Order: sequence, then structure tokens, then C-alpha cells
Amino acid sequence: MKVGILGGGQLAQLICLAAQELQIETLCLCQNLDEAANKYSQLMQDDGSEATLQKFAQAVDVITLENENVEVKRLEFLQQFKTVYPPLLAIKNSQDRLLEKQMFMDLGIATVAFADIQSEAELNNTWHQFNEQGILKTRRFGYDGKGQLRLNQETLISEAWHTYKDQPMIVERFLPFDYEVSLIGARNASGVQVFYPLIKNIHQEGILRISEAPYLNDVLQAQAEDYMQRIFKHLDYVGVLAFEFFVKENQLFANEIAPRVHNSGHLTLEGATISQFHLHLLSILDQSLPQPEFLKPTAMINLIGSLPDQAVILKAVPTAHFYDYGKVPRVGRKLGHISLTAESVMQLHHQIQVIVQQIIK
Amino acid sequence: MKVGILGGGQLAQLICLAAQELQIETLCLCQNLDEAANKYSQLMQDDGSEATLQKFAQAVDVITLENENVEVKRLEFLQQFKTVYPPLLAIKNSQDRLLEKQMFMDLGIATVAFADIQSEAELNNTWHQFNEQGILKTRRFGYDGKGQLRLNQETLISEAWHTYKDQPMIVERFLPFDYEVSLIGARNASGVQVFYPLIKNIHQEGILRISEAPYLNDVLQAQAEDYMQRIFKHLDYVGVLAFEFFVKENQLFANEIAPRVHNSGHLTLEGATISQFHLHLLSILDQSLPQPEFLKPTAMINLIGSLPDQAVILKAVPTAHFYDYGKVPRVGRKLGHISLTAESVMQLHHQIQVIVQQIIK
Repeated sequence: MKVGILGGGQLAQLICLAAQELQIETLCLCQNLDEAANKYSQLMQDDGSEATLQKFAQAVDVITLENENVEVKRLEFLQQFKTVYPPLLAIKNSQDRLLEKQMFMDLGIATVAFADIQSEAELNNTWHQFNEQGILKTRRFGYDGKGQLRLNQETLISEAWHTYKDQPMIVERFLPFDYEVSLIGARNASGVQVFYPLIKNIHQEGILRISEAPYLNDVLQAQAEDYMQRIFKHLDYVGVLAFEFFVKENQLFANEIAPRVHNSGHLTLEGATISQFHLHLLSILDQSLPQPEFLKPTAMINLIGSLPDQAVILKAVPTAHFYDYGKVPRVGRKLGHISLTAESVMQLHHQIQVIVQQIIK
Repeated sequence: MKVGILGGGQLAQLICLAAQELQIETLCLCQNLDEAANKYSQLMQDDGSEATLQKFAQAVDVITLENENVEVKRLEFLQQFKTVYPPLLAIKNSQDRLLEKQMFMDLGIATVAFADIQSEAELNNTWHQFNEQGILKTRRFGYDGKGQLRLNQETLISEAWHTYKDQPMIVERFLPFDYEVSLIGARNASGVQVFYPLIKNIHQEGILRISEAPYLNDVLQAQAEDYMQRIFKHLDYVGVLAFEFFVKENQLFANEIAPRVHNSGHLTLEGATISQFHLHLLSILDQSLPQPEFLKPTAMINLIGSLPDQAVILKAVPTAHFYDYGKVPRVGRKLGHISLTAESVMQLHHQIQVIVQQIIK
């Protein structure tokens, strides 16, 4: 059995590592043959041609991806030869914030008020409607706070309009949420679905900084699972799905879905009975799915822009797991992460504090 | 104790009748002194002047209304003298479909996807986004299917745009819902809140035809009450509130709220332990609120456009209650209604069938 993966970055790498453990072969289609997945997988050079796509598809049994921003036409081409999971509609809807939000509404899933923006006049009108509090977002290719602009009373709308004016965009009403959570779930081709307990996420400047699990809240857990089940059913989904929510007054507001393994789920490697990477492989191979649980309080700290000294971190918290993605440092870039597990939430929070102090130094 | 009511139509009339039973005095401010409420209440002629408003306010202890389409400025003026219930924010938001829908979204209440429309180009764009299936609605003054236009593949968008082009409008995505329900609830000034069991509603051409209660569905009842509680809290609401929902695949989508007694609640007069009219008065006078229940299967049939012969109806179903509002017949106008109670749902459905056949004749 050989799984084909589009991309060879850090998420692909961890899928390939899980595949090794499950004795599944992998082949990653990458633009560079020195990408992170190289460590655990065969790679194939992607030259953008259909001939290469066909060769890739013919060399594997099933195809998946690590990043939803793949041209849908390429996926349609691949599908002529082998099954692609998650399904194309999931990828299409998650590529475009407008389609994604309309899907949430069609399925009765609470989300933040938004408006499609096609002109400066519409932007100005919506800004007023939202009491001058909003977030301008490009419909496509936004991540880690990129493609986003906060609108407030001081905003000069003509400047805001010109920031993204060549790209389709939406405005969301600004929601002063209390915190964020993500639900990671999986569904296999036979329709069996499982969900992790919620993960609580702390963002700064649009970038995920710290995740913590399990976030135990029966009401929110049930609501989030219900919402994800609606998405699963609507998309006839197969694979791991991540669903990010804003929480305000103990109510969920859908932010976005990611049709793949997710940064906030890294901590499933150390903290859970099965990792999201294993679960994704089992799902797309239509194996039975165990109910995933967290064994201990678990956290992940993203390392952004620069890496702290690994030795110093491990000296401060000997049980920490240090991941270096081997990327060139750049402001705002995720370069690695640290996973923590502890015997108690109090101990976990102490560890987080110790490490955050080392990072800030 | 004297309650002032803005308006003297058929809903005001039934509030005044309930007031008589509770030994509460009423005064209705009406444009014509021969309006329906005349039967059970003092009326005051409304000449539109502030002097008259002041005189009215000074003659009563608390002010309420039978129709939310009252100019907010008039209510603000009245509020200088006496408390107005429901609160002005409730009336403001329910007057305008855009504000209303944004409130639903801000409170995490599922609603149908929509877009504000300010130009023909925006209408055309939204129509395409919604797969050429939508409903164009004026933001204000829509009722009984008026101010609404169904958009589909055959629609000529320039014609649709010109239908309402002098009025602010929105487009809703067309939802092929299974049926509609309304929840009627009440909250008194001390914050106590009660809810009727759901009422199921059947519309034709945008006009409510038949309501039936109780509609027993634990999941939808709990969801609808949760949604109404969010609205109550957000608006610091006092009085009876009606909340209309579309139901699709056992999920609720908020359609609209009415900050008043509601046509679908007429059947509470015959079928429930307490009527919506009594409950509204108890709420605005901050009395204790009994939990309302339906004693028997109950239905209401609206009489629209023309009235059937009352004697024939009562001969066919002797237990029917026949209401003639005494209005001049006009196509699509609600002229009266028939209330039914029965020992079983089967018997109720039989009665409905007998009466509908008489009406169609």
C-alpha cells in the first residue's frame, strides 16, 4: 500500500513518519527534493506537468495532501487515475472564505457576520454597518494573519481597499471573542467518525502560539461535534478535518475548516492515544478508527521567527519534545514547536511559563 | 392600572379583551376611532402630533404596541413620560431585516445566508453566488409575502432590481425548508421567562394559512428556547416575543422575530392554559408568569381574501371558534380565523380537512 502526498513540508513529514510506523509506503510530490518529508519518504520532483501528475498517480494507491491550496484542476486531473482524499468539494470550499462561510450558513452553523466586498463603496458601506469594527480578509490564500486587515474607527477605507484591491475579499464583523478552540475529527470512507476532545488555542497577531488539550467543556464539545458531523455529511468527507471556532459567552462561532492535519493537532503526537497523522492515514485507507483520547494534560508552543536554544529548553523542562523544522528563520514564520505533557494542568501551566520565559529572553 | 396600546387593530383588540378579564384598563391610540379594539377599549384619536402623544402617555401607566412598524422617534418621545415595552432596540432590530439578521449572527443563531444589496451589480453578483436561487426582500415593511421576490434561473435581474430599487433591500439564499415553526415566549421586567411548546406553521404564497400546536420535538424546542433566551438577554426584553424559524433536516434557521403577540399564537386563546395576550399583559406589568401549556391538540386556520359562511362552518365543526375581524375583503388580506381544538391529533386533522374543503368551495 502506497500513499501519495501532495507536498513535502513539515505536515507531510509527520504523516510519512506515522506511515512508517504503520508500515505504509509514501511518495511525496514536491517542488524541491530537499523538503522536510525527505527524511521519512520517497519524493518525486513536481515540474507542474500533467505527465508528472499522471506518473505520480500511477505510482500510488490513494492520494492526499498537506495543504488545501492546490489548484482544483490538478486534483481533478489526478482523480482520473486514483482517489483523492479529502474530497474536492472540501478543498474547494476551504480555499475560499466566502464559499466556506456560505457553507456554514447553509448547514445552520453559527458564524460571524460577513459581507462579500467587490468595490470600495461596498467596503465603506459594510464598515459602517459593522459599526466601524471589522476584519478585511482576502477570500483566498490567507494564513497566519496574512491577507487580513483589522478595520476600526481610525481606518482610512480607501487605503484599506487598495491593500487587497486586486484580490476578491470579504469583511467579517469584529467579534471580541473570549478564546479559540479547534476540534480535530476524522471520518473513514465507510462513514465511521471520531473526534478528539477540544483543543484550546491562543493566538497573537493572527498566529497560533500555544495550544492546550484536552479542553473539557461538554456543551462546546457536543456543539462542535454536531457542527463537524454536518460538514462531514455534506462533503461526504474522508480524512482528518480541523475546525477552528471562536468562543464567546460559551457559544461557538465557526471560523474556518482545514481539510487536513492541523498545526493545533501536533500535540496529539505526545498527548493522545493516537496521533492525528495516524488517524488521517487510517481514514483514507478505510481502516477502523479508534476513539482518540488525551492521556495527560498536553500543550504545544509554536516557535515563531527564531528558535530558542534546544539545550536550554530541555534543561529547563527535560520532558519537553523539541521540533526543529529546519527552515530558514523569517519574521512570523513557524520554525518549530515544543510539545509538553504533564501530570496535572497546574504542572503543565508551570512548564509553559518556564518555556515562554526562555523564548522571550 | 391602565395600559396604553399603540394601534387598535385586531391584535390590540385581543389584548384589550384579555385586559378586561384581568381587570386592567386599556387606552388605544388609533388613527380611526372605529378600529377593532373599539369593542373592548377606550380609544384616543392619533393626529400624529407630539401633544397627542404626550397626552396619551400621561393617561396611562405603561405603553406597548401591536405592530413593530412604529417610528422609533415617536417611541423615544413617549419614553420620556412612560416606560415602553418591548424595549426600543427590539423594535428597531425587528423593523429592519438587515439589523435583525446581523443580530442573529452576533448571537450565534443559525440563519439563512444573506447579503445587503445596494446596486444592480451587487444584486447580480449575489444572485450568481447563490446559484441563481434567492429571495429579494425589502429591509423594511415586508409582511405576508409583500416586499419579497423569488429569484431563480429565469429572473431578469434588471427587472428584479427595479421592483424595489427605491428601498433598501437584502437577498437571502433560497432555502428549500421542510416546514416552519414559531416559538412564542414571554419575559417580565424581573427577567422571568416562559415559553409555549412550538407551533407548526404552513404558509402559502408568503401568508400564514394554518398553525398547529403543540408541535412536540424536544431537540427543536430546546434549540428554539436557547435562541430566544439569547435574544431576551441581548435586548433585555419585556413582553411576548414571537420567533419564526425554518426547519430543514431537523435544524432551525432563524427567519424573523416579532416583538409582540403573533398571528400564529391566536390558537393559545382556545388551546393553551393561558393566552399570549394575557401573558403579554402579565409580562409588561411585571407579574409572575405561569408556564404555558397546550391542553389539547389545537389549530388555527386563517381566513384570507374572503370569509366563508360562519353557519356552514359551525355546522360542519360545531366546536370551531369563528373570528371575523370586520375588515373589508381584499385579495391576500387576513379577514378572520377559525380556531379548533380536538381530543386527538387525528380528530384535529379531520376537522382541518373539513373546514379547508368548505373554504375552497
